[in-house]
Amino acid sequence: MSILDYDTVSLDDANSALVIIDQTLLPNETKILHLTEQKDIWDAIYLLKVRGAPAIGDAAAIGIYLAAKKIESKDFDSFYAEFKKAKEYLDSARPTAVNLSWALNRMDSVVLKNKDKSIEEIKEILKKEAIAIVDEDIFICKQIGLYGVTLFKDGDGLLTHCNAGQLATAKYGTATAPMYIAHEKGWKIKVFSDETRPLLQGARLTSYELHSAGIDVTSICDSAAATVMRNGWVQCIFVGCDRVAANGDFANKVGTSSVAIAAKRFGIPFYVCAPSSTIDLNTKSGKDIVIEQRDGKEVSTMWYEKPMIPDGVKIYNPAFDVTDNDLVTGFVTEYGIAKAPFDKSLKEIVEKANNKHK
Amino acid sequence: MSILDYDTVSLDDANSALVIIDQTLLPNETKILHLTEQKDIWDAIYLLKVRGAPAIGDAAAIGIYLAAKKIESKDFDSFYAEFKKAKEYLDSARPTAVNLSWALNRMDSVVLKNKDKSIEEIKEILKKEAIAIVDEDIFICKQIGLYGVTLFKDGDGLLTHCNAGQLATAKYGTATAPMYIAHEKGWKIKVFSDETRPLLQGARLTSYELHSAGIDVTSICDSAAATVMRNGWVQCIFVGCDRVAANGDFANKVGTSSVAIAAKRFGIPFYVCAPSSTIDLNTKSGKDIVIEQRDGKEVSTMWYEKPMIPDGVKIYNPAFDVTDNDLVTGFVTEYGIAKAPFDKSLKEIVEKANNKHK
Repeated sequence: MSILDYDTVSLDDANSALVIIDQTLLPNETKILHLTEQKDIWDAIYLLKVRGAPAIGDAAAIGIYLAAKKIESKDFDSFYAEFKKAKEYLDSARPTAVNLSWALNRMDSVVLKNKDKSIEEIKEILKKEAIAIVDEDIFICKQIGLYGVTLFKDGDGLLTHCNAGQLATAKYGTATAPMYIAHEKGWKIKVFSDETRPLLQGARLTSYELHSAGIDVTSICDSAAATVMRNGWVQCIFVGCDRVAANGDFANKVGTSSVAIAAKRFGIPFYVCAPSSTIDLNTKSGKDIVIEQRDGKEVSTMWYEKPMIPDGVKIYNPAFDVTDNDLVTGFVTEYGIAKAPFDKSLKEIVEKANNKHK
Repeated sequence: MSILDYDTVSLDDANSALVIIDQTLLPNETKILHLTEQKDIWDAIYLLKVRGAPAIGDAAAIGIYLAAKKIESKDFDSFYAEFKKAKEYLDSARPTAVNLSWALNRMDSVVLKNKDKSIEEIKEILKKEAIAIVDEDIFICKQIGLYGVTLFKDGDGLLTHCNAGQLATAKYGTATAPMYIAHEKGWKIKVFSDETRPLLQGARLTSYELHSAGIDVTSICDSAAATVMRNGWVQCIFVGCDRVAANGDFANKVGTSSVAIAAKRFGIPFYVCAPSSTIDLNTKSGKDIVIEQRDGKEVSTMWYEKPMIPDGVKIYNPAFDVTDNDLVTGFVTEYGIAKAPFDKSLKEIVEKANNKHK
């Protein structure tokens, strides 16, 4: 069985469980987790057992539905008070990915819109909404793939950072969607996958899933990305994103901005695969994006047999970085490709998304 | 006892041994190796037990002296034939660092210059030359430090990649020499040390030695270097180098070019600390520098409890990269700072060095 045969995130309603693959154990162990407790769901998000902006949104939607399902109050006000508490709790697991709060807010608005219905009906509506969020994720990724595949040609070399792959979404991935679609068309592509320190999502997850799919993939250290570009081996770059600001600055896994800066120098198109849900017009620019700081032990100790940085040395471990909008060739969304000036093009994408959900 | 109390490379002539610290075990274990066999010296260079361009030169000089010492032939021609064989063998350990062949050639020319002397006298001259190479290394590093410290001021943030530190030379280091000199002056500097995948020389060695010296050092993932620059925390960058071409392109540990590209974007001065012995006017440009390719297991498996890249995935693991000359603010050498146009300024440095050795 290939890793691609498992759902990254799904609901087991009969057992009131969120079902995920524990991504911290890949590629050495494929362990499926059935999470029923909110604490365990929070931990799974915080500890990156489930990760990637869309998958976090999916897990949060299912998670908050499961929280609601357990609420025993029969009147709306006390139900909603408990729902809000559960929502705030899940929302606190990770600060940078907008999809976490986006999915929770969408679930929240469904509750408010149906406040006159019975609690049982509201729970049923929440379940449908969570499933809809997951299904839309799959549809959106496929659309991104179809738009993205128009940006390169058979035989090209591609490069990606971190895992904005199937394992970061319900299916196809975002940055990997154009690769999977190209592969379905029978194109021979050659993908370079940055290992992505410190959590090695590129090494452990991206190279794993692309290789499982039969795509030619080469793993490299993050610091070798500029070399493969300089060698002329890369014709197009696709990365995911966790939050896009109104001006086109965006946050993604730390190291993304290095790739973008090198791509600019070597004249290589740099595309950001962004479901419209990651576009946050309330965030004016990169300056307004909160960057999650994580434990230095992820750098010094995790994965290793022995610590690789001596005790007492300070460690700075930002989980994300901000890439400035002038480095972006375009944002590939489910509604098409947004190009500069981004304040205008991103707004149009969000308007299309809003019209669809009206 | 601090790591700085040990000599990185030295000769124990009584025991006919090259004495080094096994740098692959740092920071968890400080093991001093006494190497008497050429095979073990070759391995120590190949396996990076001793590493860093100047230290490799020092080790090679001592190594070839020890090889010569063992030669039993009493006539020059058969002595020299064996000497050449030993020289070729050591020279094959690593292809990119020019100091390896530079030191061996210098030892070779000493033999030829004294061919009319007795073999015993030649051996004694070789010993003196090896010790002179080590002593000059220390002097050169200090000079680089004195020139380098003029390029920043008290309170500044500095960044370095890999280990061009004391552990890469006999003392002071090259890229770290300005830091040690600043520290001796009582300046408060803040150094960011890239961890430097895959062999983690920055995490294991640079952060270790600077912290041991009482310098404020923060370890970061290579991919976070652009972030600390974007944050405004870095006023000046110093890196080492393994080979400088006549036009100012240079080779250094993989990832150096990423740092240089980001430095250019953020307007941060980028200096290369280069003993004149690393300037190779016979190498016209970066295109002519041979880049050592190393085993992919260094990326997938080394240091880890379990492999982090699944079997079957290709790995590209260049040990070095080439940084283009337009990204270099200056080369800090023992004879001063070479600025653009580099074809002229580097030639002047080499001429000064040649005049000195005449």
